[in-house]
Amino acid sequence: MPTPAAKRQRSSKDVPYHLVYWPGIPGRGEHVRLALEEAGASYTDTAHIKDGINEVLEQIDAKNTGDDTCPPPLAPPILKHGDLTINQTPNILLYLGPKLSLAPKPGDDDEDGLYIVNELTLTALDGLSNEPHDCHHPIATGLYYEDQKEESLRKSKDYVSNRLPKFIGYFERVLKSKASGDGPWLYGGKLTYADLVLFQCLDGLKFMFPKAVKKLADSGDYKGVFTLYEAVKERPSIKEYLASDRRQKFSQGIYRYYEELDVIE
Amino acid sequence: MPTPAAKRQRSSKDVPYHLVYWPGIPGRGEHVRLALEEAGASYTDTAHIKDGINEVLEQIDAKNTGDDTCPPPLAPPILKHGDLTINQTPNILLYLGPKLSLAPKPGDDDEDGLYIVNELTLTALDGLSNEPHDCHHPIATGLYYEDQKEESLRKSKDYVSNRLPKFIGYFERVLKSKASGDGPWLYGGKLTYADLVLFQCLDGLKFMFPKAVKKLADSGDYKGVFTLYEAVKERPSIKEYLASDRRQKFSQGIYRYYEELDVIE
Repeated sequence: MPTPAAKRQRSSKDVPYHLVYWPGIPGRGEHVRLALEEAGASYTDTAHIKDGINEVLEQIDAKNTGDDTCPPPLAPPILKHGDLTINQTPNILLYLGPKLSLAPKPGDDDEDGLYIVNELTLTALDGLSNEPHDCHHPIATGLYYEDQKEESLRKSKDYVSNRLPKFIGYFERVLKSKASGDGPWLYGGKLTYADLVLFQCLDGLKFMFPKAVKKLADSGDYKGVFTLYEAVKERPSIKEYLASDRRQKFSQGIYRYYEELDVIE
Repeated sequence: MPTPAAKRQRSSKDVPYHLVYWPGIPGRGEHVRLALEEAGASYTDTAHIKDGINEVLEQIDAKNTGDDTCPPPLAPPILKHGDLTINQTPNILLYLGPKLSLAPKPGDDDEDGLYIVNELTLTALDGLSNEPHDCHHPIATGLYYEDQKEESLRKSKDYVSNRLPKFIGYFERVLKSKASGDGPWLYGGKLTYADLVLFQCLDGLKFMFPKAVKKLADSGDYKGVFTLYEAVKERPSIKEYLASDRRQKFSQGIYRYYEELDVIE
């Protein structure tokens, strides 16, 4: 029987954030990086630390049983801040968002807006990150793409003709809602981390399914979504980040380019 | 160009919660119901309102552009509370959890514990709800199971031999961590909504993959997880709820029983 949880210390958190993520791919860690970069926050990143991969491997080792107040994380991205170790991309963003002024915070008049930012983030990750990943791994994440190529093609065809337009169309509708407010952003007339997530997903989709994304852009039906994409890209901090060597290239992560999957129906 | 977002009113929320979900299946709505039932909260539910399905259809209609402060939801479950309309299962639970004393709240000494409860919930939903759903719909949610039977069998075999033990093993490890505290619960020695989510996922998996779940239970390697399952089932409010006609039976929702997919390797 475990001993009682040690009482969490409300320790000073005036320390840099520390991101634990696989070196070599932007992956899900990139959503966290974009928030930190936009806010100009001080952070360290295993992607840029010598042997940083060892920290990823230690954290997700099946023998890791966490510490007194935090259970072991299942998978990266993992954020360490003070005595807190947390995982799950939308959870890390939920933690960071109010602190980085990228989402409403408790006590704000619009404090419930945090649940809007969180729901939009979850929906973008579901439909524009997890589903694209499954397009090249529809049967098993533990198998190579080469072992599920036929199924991948079948799923990709469905994705670009049905799912992708559904999700992009949904975000276009969100951008047209009164709740989105003025300007190019999804919610409340201000940039939130949900906008950064949508940008990153679109950037990955442009890499993975260039033909299908071009078709959507050319249709003129999703002007709000593509305007948001450009507006994020032009944020001064983001622009500087994207041009830096901290920005890793898409390769064999969530978003992958396989010519045979770059289909349009 | 949308008009500026109307300022959200911090209106009294001393009104019942209203759950908007498909009638006839427990589905993702059930996670919300279990939290409300455990807490003895006052709520209404389209599953038990005449023509309740019409409200679901109105909410997810492609012409719905939301209201002054909330964008349209993509999909049920949807929670309405005062002037707030939100969707995404883990987001609704995040909103309800602190209010229903099923998670730490802002201002608590352990306020950061909310991010632990949220991450465990996200992980349970990823691996024990979304992945099982994809076992019968690996290629396209818009196609019938009958149109993707071969791929479903291939995915199910991988799921029960690799993914299911991975996730159940992870939660067993969480239960062994100091952070879980005393008693059968995942975090902090107290029941949280993450426990209710894990219970509901296991209940669905027992329906969908009875052989594989029995094998895991019989192995004796996951005693913590199965003890938690029984402990939730014996909570007085949950027990009463499960025996009531408000508890809908599993059928053709997230968790489905197809004899041919009930495999063990």
